Amino acid sequence: MARIDLNADLGEGFGVWRLGDDDAMLGIVTSANVACGFHAGDPAGLLSVCRLAARRGVRIGAQVSYRDLAGFGRRFIDVAPDDLLADVVYQIGALHGLAQSVGSTVSYVKPHGALYNTIVTHAEQAGAVAEAVRTVDAGLPVLGLAGSVFFDEAQRRGLRTVSEAFADRAYRPDGRLVSRREPGAVLDDPAAVAERVLSMVTDGAVTAIDGSVVEVHVESVCVHGDSPGAVQIASAVRDRLLGAGIELGAFS
Amino acid sequence: MARIDLNADLGEGFGVWRLGDDDAMLGIVTSANVACGFHAGDPAGLLSVCRLAARRGVRIGAQVSYRDLAGFGRRFIDVAPDDLLADVVYQIGALHGLAQSVGSTVSYVKPHGALYNTIVTHAEQAGAVAEAVRTVDAGLPVLGLAGSVFFDEAQRRGLRTVSEAFADRAYRPDGRLVSRREPGAVLDDPAAVAERVLSMVTDGAVTAIDGSVVEVHVESVCVHGDSPGAVQIASAVRDRLLGAGIELGAFS
Amino acid sequence: MARIDLNADLGEGFGVWRLGDDDAMLGIVTSANVACGFHAGDPAGLLSVCRLAARRGVRIGAQVSYRDLAGFGRRFIDVAPDDLLADVVYQIGALHGLAQSVGSTVSYVKPHGALYNTIVTHAEQAGAVAEAVRTVDAGLPVLGLAGSVFFDEAQRRGLRTVSEAFADRAYRPDGRLVSRREPGAVLDDPAAVAERVLSMVTDGAVTAIDGSVVEVHVESVCVHGDSPGAVQIASAVRDRLLGAGIELGAFS
Amino acid sequence: MARIDLNADLGEGFGVWRLGDDDAMLGIVTSANVACGFHAGDPAGLLSVCRLAARRGVRIGAQVSYRDLAGFGRRFIDVAPDDLLADVVYQIGALHGLAQSVGSTVSYVKPHGALYNTIVTHAEQAGAVAEAVRTVDAGLPVLGLAGSVFFDEAQRRGLRTVSEAFADRAYRPDGRLVSRREPGAVLDDPAAVAERVLSMVTDGAVTAIDGSVVEVHVESVCVHGDSPGAVQIASAVRDRLLGAGIELGAFS
Repeated sequence: MARIDLNADLGEGFGVWRLGDDDAMLGIVTSANVACGFHAGDPAGLLSVCRLAARRGVRIGAQVSYRDLAGFGRRFIDVAPDDLLADVVYQIGALHGLAQSVGSTVSYVKPHGALYNTIVTHAEQAGAVAEAVRTVDAGLPVLGLAGSVFFDEAQRRGLRTVSEAFADRAYRPDGRLVSRREPGAVLDDPAAVAERVLSMVTDGAVTAIDGSVVEVHVESVCVHGDSPGAVQIASAVRDRLLGAGIELGAFS
Repeated sequence: MARIDLNADLGEGFGVWRLGDDDAMLGIVTSANVACGFHAGDPAGLLSVCRLAARRGVRIGAQVSYRDLAGFGRRFIDVAPDDLLADVVYQIGALHGLAQSVGSTVSYVKPHGALYNTIVTHAEQAGAVAEAVRTVDAGLPVLGLAGSVFFDEAQRRGLRTVSEAFADRAYRPDGRLVSRREPGAVLDDPAAVAERVLSMVTDGAVTAIDGSVVEVHVESVCVHGDSPGAVQIASAVRDRLLGAGIELGAFS
Repeated sequence: MARIDLNADLGEGFGVWRLGDDDAMLGIVTSANVACGFHAGDPAGLLSVCRLAARRGVRIGAQVSYRDLAGFGRRFIDVAPDDLLADVVYQIGALHGLAQSVGSTVSYVKPHGALYNTIVTHAEQAGAVAEAVRTVDAGLPVLGLAGSVFFDEAQRRGLRTVSEAFADRAYRPDGRLVSRREPGAVLDDPAAVAERVLSMVTDGAVTAIDGSVVEVHVESVCVHGDSPGAVQIASAVRDRLLGAGIELGAFS
Repeated sequence: MARIDLNADLGEGFGVWRLGDDDAMLGIVTSANVACGFHAGDPAGLLSVCRLAARRGVRIGAQVSYRDLAGFGRRFIDVAPDDLLADVVYQIGALHGLAQSVGSTVSYVKPHGALYNTIVTHAEQAGAVAEAVRTVDAGLPVLGLAGSVFFDEAQRRGLRTVSEAFADRAYRPDGRLVSRREPGAVLDDPAAVAERVLSMVTDGAVTAIDGSVVEVHVESVCVHGDSPGAVQIASAVRDRLLGAGIELGAFS
């Protein structure tokens, strides 16, 4: 039976501020990309998410970021590789401590926001992130974009790379995502999104924005959880996959 | 042969800002209380201190603090126990990640500044810090003040407590420290400080500010390293102890 | 005709995180206590609130706080008076710059959260806040609690003090607020709250939690805006006052 | 008689951390570029520098930066123009409040570090900084690099631009600075630096790193103050200029 992982970003509040419905999403996904305090996430909030994830058997990943609370990690920062390496190690360690204190562990690493996008092509920063993961625990897989420089750097260091696809984003004919600034970049119809994801998982293909069919290699599907509508989409994806006999489970 | 641990606060810069001579101190002490980013310490600076400590075989402890870079952790903050617990777990985990990435580990925990002073008597915060250590790793010893509520809370949870004395601080007849606001609170003559420490270690006693003799139980001696004079004092302490046949080594 | 000011806390998001419905509240209140970046408020968000307030003719006040984003300024910090003074000056100046850039100005100062509560009795911190206001602009009124040490310190320095009452909070027989930790501390029935405020404004009295009648001196009424229910309460208060022929307007 | 302004970066500590000898530099320069809290500068430290500057009659400028304490404002951040505008307004306002509270004022604006370098060519960010200054106070001059896009954007908005030269940096034949990464980029002989500055001021020319002579237009000379050697260089520059009959004074 086919099997797929569903991942979502969680723990992205800070102090009194909340973002998304972590509790609802933990009932849907199999992997939780938990913030680590650099773009979001105060320790008490993160501990609470880790505890909920541990209770529900959802795996915890470290969603590492540039140090940028004011910008939510969405702005490129020209940080030196040595500093970035240490920033990433610090974040993985911090989240691992929280996870460990509730009987769980950090099982993988996923870069967030501008860092995620930057290391698709930025070799120095990509190398710094990969090296950070390797030095903390060379057994930790990294979640990201197939074909990225980040994956090259990770594989060179012997790290396991896990390719993800995005449930609610339009694809270009070359397999990259349509920029959020362009019309049609984000899909919002739950049924249509669910159908696309099923096609990605079973056929390894998705229809691009120009109607062409693009091959995608997917071990995990990223669903968003920062709005009520997003929870509904995530539920639709899960239900469609389960209905088609796909098993939901964390990547090995 | 008698044996004693020397500890000092290290890694207390932030970004471009430096504080103290970490390199010199790592040639003197046997335990390094490394900052964890909440009162001081950017990840790259902390990683660098951890690497130096690992190379020299100096043990690394997590110097946990209130979240207060602007106040260097020297101001009491009325943080709720649940939040404090998570803050402490986060810091231990973060430093452990850094230590692990250079082949070392966090071997103990020492609260910093206002937190250290507060949990001598503040039961709720003392309990939160002790509980944080217990949930991360119940095998981690805590360094602090004999007779403190913090030690009560730690022992109740089965944690090993390690009593420290202060090399350069005057004692009151009741065994507490003379407040820094009072004259004579801080000693600055290297030879006199070294002699006092020797007496603490060999006789279990120190002469208080009123001339009376006070019993002290010491497993570790805290020396300061944030000025050239402090490095000189720390060296004098080490040399005096070694000259008297005391072995310097981390507490067991 | 009687006249009263309605004030509310605004601009209390940070980066991507939002709190309350600033736009709705600006249609109700006559004075906006705008955060200054220390407990909440990134500059772009604050500028946006200032612009909206300026357009609607709502007066802007500087809601100054301890430096504590993680705790939303709700935790006492034992900050030294000189540091607190500078922190308050910095915040007033920052918000004034933003207000000025959209053609408005900071017209008053209101301490936030734990700082507000602390300086009801803490003379040193109260003096620091009052002195900060005096040195920036001795013509700025301060909004706070009648009978507080803060008001004593402000008046000693020649500052105008403006007494406020709380629309949705229960009072003790001695005129202080019932602690939020006790049952019945917060009122949530819009009609009842509106009726109480009318009584405060027209009779200078409010029924305490034990049924006794307490005298209150009110120049401004604080309404909350951080939930949909809160906006409804604020509307009810405004409508009840207007319906009774009370004019809503900023204090002189 | 010729007249020139000497400027230096001051107030660049944070909390317990100090950088440079502000007191010594305030005895040398005529304009103090005071940090505003985003790359350095806690309010109490900034207030102290403003007070010293006011006493000595040294003019205060707002040294505005990206929000980046960990990186000391030396890393490019891809911040959106609207956010940058608000960040700059906030900083100018904050420093102005501090200056005002000690009887002085902010007299000009100088971008710091990576922001300074970025807006030499980055039109959107340059426009945001210029627009920020204009909306706060269109009478504030900006200090920067002649020929920069920042100066274009400032002049388009009617701002006065003041060109500066760098006392201790090598120039390329095209009038730009030699990158710090290249050998010979920073000069450290006080006498040689002083002679160069004199030539810049009296002849409007400087010898480039290849021996060619480059025209420079200078209204202010930037000296550095973050090391004992730097203070010595700054003194040498001042003495050489005064000895040659040049008057030191703030730009008009």
